[in-house]
Amino acid sequence: MAGNSFGQVLKITTFGESHGRAIGVVVDGFPAGIPIQLSEIQAALDRRRPGQSHITTQRKETDQVEVLSGIFEGQSTGMPITLVVFNHDARSKDYSHIQDAFRPSHADFTYEAKYGHRDYRGGGRSSARETLARVAAGALIRQWLAPKGVSIQAYVNQIGSIQTTRPYYELDLSLTEKNIVRCPDQALAQKMISLVEETKKAGDSVGGMVTCVISGLPVGLGEPVFDKLHAELAKATLSINACKGFDYGSGFGAAAMLGSEHNDEFVPGIPHPTTKTNHSGGIQGGISNGMDIYFRAAFKPVATIMHDQNSVDKYGNAITIKGKGRHDPCVVPRAVPIVEAMAWLVIGDFWLRKLEKG
Amino acid sequence: MAGNSFGQVLKITTFGESHGRAIGVVVDGFPAGIPIQLSEIQAALDRRRPGQSHITTQRKETDQVEVLSGIFEGQSTGMPITLVVFNHDARSKDYSHIQDAFRPSHADFTYEAKYGHRDYRGGGRSSARETLARVAAGALIRQWLAPKGVSIQAYVNQIGSIQTTRPYYELDLSLTEKNIVRCPDQALAQKMISLVEETKKAGDSVGGMVTCVISGLPVGLGEPVFDKLHAELAKATLSINACKGFDYGSGFGAAAMLGSEHNDEFVPGIPHPTTKTNHSGGIQGGISNGMDIYFRAAFKPVATIMHDQNSVDKYGNAITIKGKGRHDPCVVPRAVPIVEAMAWLVIGDFWLRKLEKG
Amino acid sequence: MAGNSFGQVLKITTFGESHGRAIGVVVDGFPAGIPIQLSEIQAALDRRRPGQSHITTQRKETDQVEVLSGIFEGQSTGMPITLVVFNHDARSKDYSHIQDAFRPSHADFTYEAKYGHRDYRGGGRSSARETLARVAAGALIRQWLAPKGVSIQAYVNQIGSIQTTRPYYELDLSLTEKNIVRCPDQALAQKMISLVEETKKAGDSVGGMVTCVISGLPVGLGEPVFDKLHAELAKATLSINACKGFDYGSGFGAAAMLGSEHNDEFVPGIPHPTTKTNHSGGIQGGISNGMDIYFRAAFKPVATIMHDQNSVDKYGNAITIKGKGRHDPCVVPRAVPIVEAMAWLVIGDFWLRKLEKG
Amino acid sequence: MAGNSFGQVLKITTFGESHGRAIGVVVDGFPAGIPIQLSEIQAALDRRRPGQSHITTQRKETDQVEVLSGIFEGQSTGMPITLVVFNHDARSKDYSHIQDAFRPSHADFTYEAKYGHRDYRGGGRSSARETLARVAAGALIRQWLAPKGVSIQAYVNQIGSIQTTRPYYELDLSLTEKNIVRCPDQALAQKMISLVEETKKAGDSVGGMVTCVISGLPVGLGEPVFDKLHAELAKATLSINACKGFDYGSGFGAAAMLGSEHNDEFVPGIPHPTTKTNHSGGIQGGISNGMDIYFRAAFKPVATIMHDQNSVDKYGNAITIKGKGRHDPCVVPRAVPIVEAMAWLVIGDFWLRKLEKG
Repeated sequence: MAGNSFGQVLKITTFGESHGRAIGVVVDGFPAGIPIQLSEIQAALDRRRPGQSHITTQRKETDQVEVLSGIFEGQSTGMPITLVVFNHDARSKDYSHIQDAFRPSHADFTYEAKYGHRDYRGGGRSSARETLARVAAGALIRQWLAPKGVSIQAYVNQIGSIQTTRPYYELDLSLTEKNIVRCPDQALAQKMISLVEETKKAGDSVGGMVTCVISGLPVGLGEPVFDKLHAELAKATLSINACKGFDYGSGFGAAAMLGSEHNDEFVPGIPHPTTKTNHSGGIQGGISNGMDIYFRAAFKPVATIMHDQNSVDKYGNAITIKGKGRHDPCVVPRAVPIVEAMAWLVIGDFWLRKLEKG
Repeated sequence: MAGNSFGQVLKITTFGESHGRAIGVVVDGFPAGIPIQLSEIQAALDRRRPGQSHITTQRKETDQVEVLSGIFEGQSTGMPITLVVFNHDARSKDYSHIQDAFRPSHADFTYEAKYGHRDYRGGGRSSARETLARVAAGALIRQWLAPKGVSIQAYVNQIGSIQTTRPYYELDLSLTEKNIVRCPDQALAQKMISLVEETKKAGDSVGGMVTCVISGLPVGLGEPVFDKLHAELAKATLSINACKGFDYGSGFGAAAMLGSEHNDEFVPGIPHPTTKTNHSGGIQGGISNGMDIYFRAAFKPVATIMHDQNSVDKYGNAITIKGKGRHDPCVVPRAVPIVEAMAWLVIGDFWLRKLEKG
Repeated sequence: MAGNSFGQVLKITTFGESHGRAIGVVVDGFPAGIPIQLSEIQAALDRRRPGQSHITTQRKETDQVEVLSGIFEGQSTGMPITLVVFNHDARSKDYSHIQDAFRPSHADFTYEAKYGHRDYRGGGRSSARETLARVAAGALIRQWLAPKGVSIQAYVNQIGSIQTTRPYYELDLSLTEKNIVRCPDQALAQKMISLVEETKKAGDSVGGMVTCVISGLPVGLGEPVFDKLHAELAKATLSINACKGFDYGSGFGAAAMLGSEHNDEFVPGIPHPTTKTNHSGGIQGGISNGMDIYFRAAFKPVATIMHDQNSVDKYGNAITIKGKGRHDPCVVPRAVPIVEAMAWLVIGDFWLRKLEKG
Repeated sequence: MAGNSFGQVLKITTFGESHGRAIGVVVDGFPAGIPIQLSEIQAALDRRRPGQSHITTQRKETDQVEVLSGIFEGQSTGMPITLVVFNHDARSKDYSHIQDAFRPSHADFTYEAKYGHRDYRGGGRSSARETLARVAAGALIRQWLAPKGVSIQAYVNQIGSIQTTRPYYELDLSLTEKNIVRCPDQALAQKMISLVEETKKAGDSVGGMVTCVISGLPVGLGEPVFDKLHAELAKATLSINACKGFDYGSGFGAAAMLGSEHNDEFVPGIPHPTTKTNHSGGIQGGISNGMDIYFRAAFKPVATIMHDQNSVDKYGNAITIKGKGRHDPCVVPRAVPIVEAMAWLVIGDFWLRKLEKG
């Protein structure tokens, strides 16, 4: 049973390969009557697009989105919405040298072993290019839920060993897009940019971390006991290429805390109580409590580097992989809109899963 | 759409409340013809049982498992297997004082807000007592897959600020069950036990961390692009009560690494290549590559403490919650069999999802 | 991927075998705060119970229902509701003579071939005894939706070649329960009873048909394009043991009609238009239009007869199956509450699937 | 929760509207390494295409299929396969006169009531044009399973009151495509053609029936207890536009039969027993037994006729709908490839759902 769909009630299915004809998404279960601006979807794709700055891959794709179904006279109809981006700058022959090779820490070997027959060009389906479909879908959901007061903002809080230790509420998140690494701390951003430039020059890649904040949620999203809100956010986030870890609220730091420190006291409030602290990260028992949700996603350095590496080919021979072609020295800034999109998908789905009381 | 089921092809549905009549699980999709020993399920439940040592809650439950369906003449029949544990030591009146109260960092408020009507006794459905159903199901799957060479072993690597920095492969995991905190480093274990004893004496609780290692998996488990093996492990793990974070392989540490450090070179091998290092944590492109899978799960300190705490009741009034009753100063050792069970559920499901090649 | 669950948002999973420990059902996604009378569930089971009249099987089961979870202080909590009936009169040795035999038109052969290991006692899981779980679940949903004005009534319109040609709206359905064959036409019912008595005496069995009418539905239930309301009703109905056919509205008769005869003209109405005729059977484009839904379900004669029959055993040998034991000469009257239950399951699920407009 | 997907393990999602940009399908879970001929998909579409003979609608669509993903170097890759047909002859202004009208026995009213905002052009999503996506998907599955010996053949056995009473095994199904009504009885076919021509001339439409035969299946397809093979075939078939009824094997005729007539005696056979008669229709206990599966599907006359009809508009006013535009006097011949396609989808899905024994 394949895994190209996400969501239960608001369900997306993505399709397409890095160097195939197109990448796209079918969004099923989207409510009818929502005004949709194609320009907002395009703007979201532009944030994820390759070639947007000198520190990202220089693959030339304009990533123009087209609508195949489900939007009529500017509004959703409740029918499946299909969004497609056709591939243009697919230099497939760049990949002929790795047709039979298993690149280290790529999915070449596991796809070959699992499927026998694979589209090796640019990683085919395993390429992060697939995530443009998620970003397009997220931009649909944003147009439905942002008017209801929900906001989702992600930013880079770490690249390599350069990181901010300040919590999200001490940062001015409106500054995130002011620099090409998407770190709202402008001074830190400059250091990050330098690090990425050096890394690029060295033909290497570097990891990083993204923090995401969801505000304005109603109380009651999330479904016990398996489909806890944070459990789905974790799955959603870890389904993004190169993501290695997820935590929310107090996160990994909670392991070293006492209950008397960690517990969030309730404070009377209208229309519902709030909490004095928010170690819970806006979720209790898997259900949103109306406070901000915040979580972190760790990303490994991307596997494509410009160094020669030892490896194996599909026939079992030891080989050397030459470092050449286009590469992204640090994908973490481009992961920001993807993390946001996945969060929109999770929130949109739980919004529709919320069972009315009898 | 509720969330009491887990898995796609091998699917479990759990039911029951902490102080209701019973806790149970229906396992659907389990293969036919597998010999099942009830004693192995019971042994797994005994590892999770309250009252197993002086540092856990003293609730007296023998947690005797009974089979209602699906096993005939000692073997599974391919029909739904239902396992039930009836509750006995349910001191419901212990909870009458919190009937209308929202305990800090519990699910009382969110359940009340979401459902309107809730079983407040011992947290009802939100109680970690529900996880016994998962452990029972995991013990079924273990009897099917352990004979095929799969092993899953979890252990405590941190309680409070006491932690081991040694990787799993430098520890002797066969020692895990030799002490009541389930830490394979016996010296460290003694310190952890002392810390939990002190915490208990102080009426407080403390967090911790569990590491889990999956060995002996075939290549090819995991489904791109959303149902990556690690993404489902993350969801499974974070669906456990009190879990705040998950990472696998290089995990959060990957953020500070370079690609040239992180990439796992392939080495020729029979029947398939292996990798020289294993920062990938046994998973590439969301699919198992035959190396060990290892992941970490961070747990917060449990919310029930013996201190008085400020809070709010369901009518919006400020109240004080008295610290009284039975409590678990540190649930992390009892989380070990639960983490293992969730891993078995994920592996069992992916085992059956594995699409044959055409 | 097994098939023991039904429904998408309101989902039931049934478990148990004819001569196992218990038969039961977990109902997940049921709304919170619905008052539940256990006596109504029991009453529904009593309508399906064996031994309820002299023309049904004389197996002695009181079919007492017990609640294991999900109901607290007389109301649903939004958590999984588990209902169980323990088996008592399980004369398993009645079946030792057919342990290795494949009874004609039973599921013995297909279960053996598919699963290898099966509970042969009374057909195990393939027994119609499993349907008591469906009836119990249906009785839950009835308590939620009947107060909203929905009614579902089924009746027997044919046994053998005795049938009523009158449409449902010319019959007084309140008379259905006045006779043991559940046919609202009392004169016809007497003929049917005589036919069943003769059939029983002859050690034979006879087929029949059930008509079901759903009234009081809101406009808008049903989901294009695959999950059309009538398509799910068809699946639900044909999942009942011995059911061979389903049609709705004009049904099979539509094949011989002209569009000008068949089309249902709309007539202005408050709060919505109605149709002058109802060949559509209350459903257009797969979505309820507010008119009555009516459908028919054809049942074959049950396979257990008191005649000797030629067959084959699991080793491939030709054998003779002796006709002996308890048998039901005509299950169609007992199918009436089962058909109703399946209809409640479909309606309850679509009620919760109904997407709010944006 | 919307309903645009079909299948559990082999899952399709269709999208698109009659007069929108395109109609398409994403097929997820299709095995890797299957050689795919696009020409075979095109041939299947040509059998369903409008304008294929003088008795079908004259809408001019070439229905050229294009592949967007999932096929590489002529073989499936295990990734989602996306097939798209762009719409060309979409005379949208033909529909401006019915923008606000509810045509009798169409889905206009129910879509308007359910969604508020709808694409009214040619019925939008409710148009049978959507079924081309199913036919394309079915043609994929055929290329995978036909080489394994499975064959699925449907034919028209009734139009209006002209019908064949001969069972499928007395007909030569290879003659089905020899005439434009797809009835293998050539003499009867001529009468059917005349009837459709007269009906067309009268501006009316007429119903009919399709019989479908599935041969060469292995034993063991179908999943108890809800997802019985025939229950899924019923749902699949009734999800086709205009379908009003389904029965299989002895079908509705079973209601009048005795068990002693209906039971299918087993006969020893290699590799497995067969049955002497086949009233079971190749399915016992919901699982295929290796004999032919045969079922019937009744279709109503299509709702579009060239007569003036009384109706209501969306404002509640009584109106008259003028009969004009292009219309299909009898869609039953074009339903033949659609019924086959739905059967392929069901068989393909169950093929992959078949649980290996432990």
